[in-house]
Amino acid sequence: MPDTSTGLTWSLVQEARERIAGKVSVTPTLTSSTLDAEAGAHLYFKCESFQKSGSFKARGATNAVFALSPEQARSGVATHSSGNHAAALARAARLRGVPAYIVMPDNSPQAKRAAVARYGGEITYCQATLAARESAARELLAATGATLIHPYDDLAVMAGQATAAVELLAQVPDLDVILCPVGGGGLLGGTAVAARALKPAVRVIGVEPSGADDAARSLRAGRIIASVKPDTIADGLRATLGERPFAVIRNLVDDITTVTDPLIVRAMRRLFEVMKIVVEPSGAVPYAALLDERPALRGRRIGLIVSGGNLDLERLPWTVAP
Amino acid sequence: MPDTSTGLTWSLVQEARERIAGKVSVTPTLTSSTLDAEAGAHLYFKCESFQKSGSFKARGATNAVFALSPEQARSGVATHSSGNHAAALARAARLRGVPAYIVMPDNSPQAKRAAVARYGGEITYCQATLAARESAARELLAATGATLIHPYDDLAVMAGQATAAVELLAQVPDLDVILCPVGGGGLLGGTAVAARALKPAVRVIGVEPSGADDAARSLRAGRIIASVKPDTIADGLRATLGERPFAVIRNLVDDITTVTDPLIVRAMRRLFEVMKIVVEPSGAVPYAALLDERPALRGRRIGLIVSGGNLDLERLPWTVAP
Repeated sequence: MPDTSTGLTWSLVQEARERIAGKVSVTPTLTSSTLDAEAGAHLYFKCESFQKSGSFKARGATNAVFALSPEQARSGVATHSSGNHAAALARAARLRGVPAYIVMPDNSPQAKRAAVARYGGEITYCQATLAARESAARELLAATGATLIHPYDDLAVMAGQATAAVELLAQVPDLDVILCPVGGGGLLGGTAVAARALKPAVRVIGVEPSGADDAARSLRAGRIIASVKPDTIADGLRATLGERPFAVIRNLVDDITTVTDPLIVRAMRRLFEVMKIVVEPSGAVPYAALLDERPALRGRRIGLIVSGGNLDLERLPWTVAP
Repeated sequence: MPDTSTGLTWSLVQEARERIAGKVSVTPTLTSSTLDAEAGAHLYFKCESFQKSGSFKARGATNAVFALSPEQARSGVATHSSGNHAAALARAARLRGVPAYIVMPDNSPQAKRAAVARYGGEITYCQATLAARESAARELLAATGATLIHPYDDLAVMAGQATAAVELLAQVPDLDVILCPVGGGGLLGGTAVAARALKPAVRVIGVEPSGADDAARSLRAGRIIASVKPDTIADGLRATLGERPFAVIRNLVDDITTVTDPLIVRAMRRLFEVMKIVVEPSGAVPYAALLDERPALRGRRIGLIVSGGNLDLERLPWTVAP
């Protein structure tokens, strides 16, 4: 594993940017005078919900797939994420013309299965336990020779995710703060490396659901404290912080703050209602921090990474039957 | 009424463009490879849902308010629309620093009242009949000296609405077709004038709910046939076609086609799900035409005006209770 010795560097991020240019979208950064007035701050929403496959995961997956040598790529790629990374990986593999093998628990939501299938991913179902997933993935890798692309504990994936912040800082160069959701830490780690390279004074703050606050606790403890039974509506942020992301986060991130599920739902709803954008719970997590009293954020120019927009529209958390 | 003799001209549209520049947003035009593949066409969604006040109505209202002389403006403006025009007019009046008097039926949805109030509009409630609205508006105009700004049967309003198509054709110059929702006809009339001036060969097609198809019937008959008990989920398109819009539409619009409410709901849902944008039923009407068999649209480069994004998020038409 030569990866761990060096960690995520700015040059890996620059390479990622060139590698994925034209293969993923440059997403817009939107503003709202209404939300600015409510927050008493200037908010810049980096809408990765409009990204290919509906989340920032397209960036990292595309970088990882296209970084493989032709020999490696030929045997395909695999993962056992059931979320946005799976769809993003399937899409990236199809772009490169190689197979994607996705291990999914047999209780995965229909929408997620459909997304992977739409991009041509080959799904192997397994039982919904980590042990079953890992053993199914091992068998698959042995049978196919595919390369495992981890959803976040992977430098090529992290370098790809970092490109969202690179774009954001090009679109809004004079930010004071970047608020970024944190689950496994790939996006936050990448964001921190990009911010430090491009604008060292910007504060990088991770925002995490209070029901899955392993990253906040890990940052305080100085070592990874695995999450135990994460419980949050933000399904994209239930993963335990990865080692490679943590190595960056502990050095470069200013703070990790938490928000409750009721605030996340209120934030989602305001983004639908005022910004007119469809965001998944995880994508609303940074804005949820603005709905709390955060005196340190008042008057600031704040970039918020809206990480994705994939969710089950039949059961929005605030709706009643028609 | 000197207006009716000349009708909507391209120079009125150009003046509107200059007048409202910086006071309304230049909205983005979004695309989706998934929806393109499904439709077998190239679709360009002009997202007026991201417009100030949440709909294209900001364009026409702003143009009308800023076209008034200082003397006229001082006494304020008024309307008896209960929909997006009311909020847009209140916003435009506040921008100019003059009062906006809005007559609203006392059964108006809370969200619509709140939008008007947020922009500082002074609301007068009346009974929910056309007669009650008109008499309340007459009294208000007599008492205040305010200028009535009609939601669509007004050349300054139509000229403002036309600027959406001007922008669309600047963003995507080589369109074959523009699909535009039609209610009172202000947006469609403006769109037709802009398209004829900038790109005479583009086909301009109005799309109307089949439950409120007075414009389609009027175009066929060559005279306005008022709608009788319009019945459609597209609340923004229930108005009867106006005379000034019709004068343009009958000369410049290629066709008006209709879509059913179930198709409108399916279209809305696809736009939420795939494009990740929040659109109101009226805004999904042009895309609904693509969900029907329309051989004439296959392979074409099609601009669709997504007119607005204001709707009650508690009761989306496809949701079930959580």
